[in-house]
Amino acid sequence: MEFWLTEKQTENLSLSLRIKEVICREKSEYQDILIAESFQYGRVLSLDGTFQTTEVDEFIYHEMITHVSLLSHPDPKDVLIIGGGDGGTVREILKHSVKTIDVVEIDKRVIELSKHCLPTISRLLEDPRVRIKIEDGISYLKKIKNKYDLIIVDSPDPKGPAIGLFSEDFYSNANRALNEDGIFVAQTESPFLHMALILKIFNGLSKRFPLVKIYTAPIPTYPSGFWSFTVASKKYSPLSPLRKGDITTKYYSPEIHKASFVLPRFLEDAIRANKAI
Amino acid sequence: MEFWLTEKQTENLSLSLRIKEVICREKSEYQDILIAESFQYGRVLSLDGTFQTTEVDEFIYHEMITHVSLLSHPDPKDVLIIGGGDGGTVREILKHSVKTIDVVEIDKRVIELSKHCLPTISRLLEDPRVRIKIEDGISYLKKIKNKYDLIIVDSPDPKGPAIGLFSEDFYSNANRALNEDGIFVAQTESPFLHMALILKIFNGLSKRFPLVKIYTAPIPTYPSGFWSFTVASKKYSPLSPLRKGDITTKYYSPEIHKASFVLPRFLEDAIRANKAI
Repeated sequence: MEFWLTEKQTENLSLSLRIKEVICREKSEYQDILIAESFQYGRVLSLDGTFQTTEVDEFIYHEMITHVSLLSHPDPKDVLIIGGGDGGTVREILKHSVKTIDVVEIDKRVIELSKHCLPTISRLLEDPRVRIKIEDGISYLKKIKNKYDLIIVDSPDPKGPAIGLFSEDFYSNANRALNEDGIFVAQTESPFLHMALILKIFNGLSKRFPLVKIYTAPIPTYPSGFWSFTVASKKYSPLSPLRKGDITTKYYSPEIHKASFVLPRFLEDAIRANKAI
Repeated sequence: MEFWLTEKQTENLSLSLRIKEVICREKSEYQDILIAESFQYGRVLSLDGTFQTTEVDEFIYHEMITHVSLLSHPDPKDVLIIGGGDGGTVREILKHSVKTIDVVEIDKRVIELSKHCLPTISRLLEDPRVRIKIEDGISYLKKIKNKYDLIIVDSPDPKGPAIGLFSEDFYSNANRALNEDGIFVAQTESPFLHMALILKIFNGLSKRFPLVKIYTAPIPTYPSGFWSFTVASKKYSPLSPLRKGDITTKYYSPEIHKASFVLPRFLEDAIRANKAI
């Protein structure tokens, strides 16, 4: 008998992982949280039936959502993560000499279960530089002004409580919460499956930031296996690293940094057509 | 009621497409051929239960297995495709001013059914520059010397009749079949799932060609969604286009050409460690 865990990535597409055992499953105040041990990709965290991260491929997502913007800034000291309760983004940021990381995560059970069941990912959540705030990131950001060098939106897909993280108001608030040379970055879904959303985000950010760029990375357990990130910067170009950094990585390199901004022609064309409207 | 077609990509990983209808299914002399209409990716061709190509994402694979090597050669005239019975590789090559394309496909039913059921992919298989040989590519290549400017191995995974396409003898025969400035390129599986095979191919080709490089592309319907190609060249560096070319593409661009050779650090490290052995 085999036990498979299936994510219906769209109405018409699904990815399944064969599972050794379910480590924990609970319905929190916000979502259905499942951590299971898969044969292919190690432990996997799923929220509301969507794979968020796996032990085997998480390095790509977490390295790419952090080092690209961190190394495009000359001296990032104060960082805000919205979401990111599993701790992978914190772990990567702490490879740099930052002063504080605020993690604003709406669901404290994601943090608690990640600490308990995903230690390789969550292991630096208790670092003294990390301040965890159990709060809605959208409300939190409304109160903040000129506080952060970098804001990272490490969120689930735009449904349920995460919808507001993809809104224009949110981008205005993010802009105000950043220092005058700050950088904003968000995971922005698949170029193969969510092009309209990518263009909407690009437009929304372009109204508020002078430098907005999209970059990509392959992520096997996300829909289509190919993922986009959008970075919006007030001053520094994100296209290549400003500093060398002295970080150990498994996916990121200075060459990958630059290459990740080279987009497939269909995506370049869509962005250009979108700009022209 | 829903009808899903599932590929077990590994023992522990599967991808499923919801299907409108099966267009044709037959057991040929060599394999189980299935063409179905999927909701997500249009028509899909499966051989022995493995997705080979879909109407929606085939452009990436076919553009990347052709234009990178074609544009690294100053004047490719005579091209050999081993496999490629669906015609997508032929269609892309004919965007260039080549003289002849020999298609050596072992299974004539793949060609016939592709002509009938996948017209957007197969539509140039009847071009007068194309010569189809229904024959085993491994045997064919043994008889050939200094004949081709480019050899493309557009094969299924290394099992069944395709195993020999990943052998050292085959690479020796390919080298001999190429002109003195010829280029060889093959699809070489996923860096996430088939690393040992990628390194074996790299080693095998490196013994016989002075310039061997790996490049990648995202392909949503292939295992892990991230795919490698290995190019082996006698004279010209494949790392950037030698000519501008005047081709219309949806994935390939001169910038993508260069960026596709920038490999994730884990893959760079594996190749370097492998070379040092």
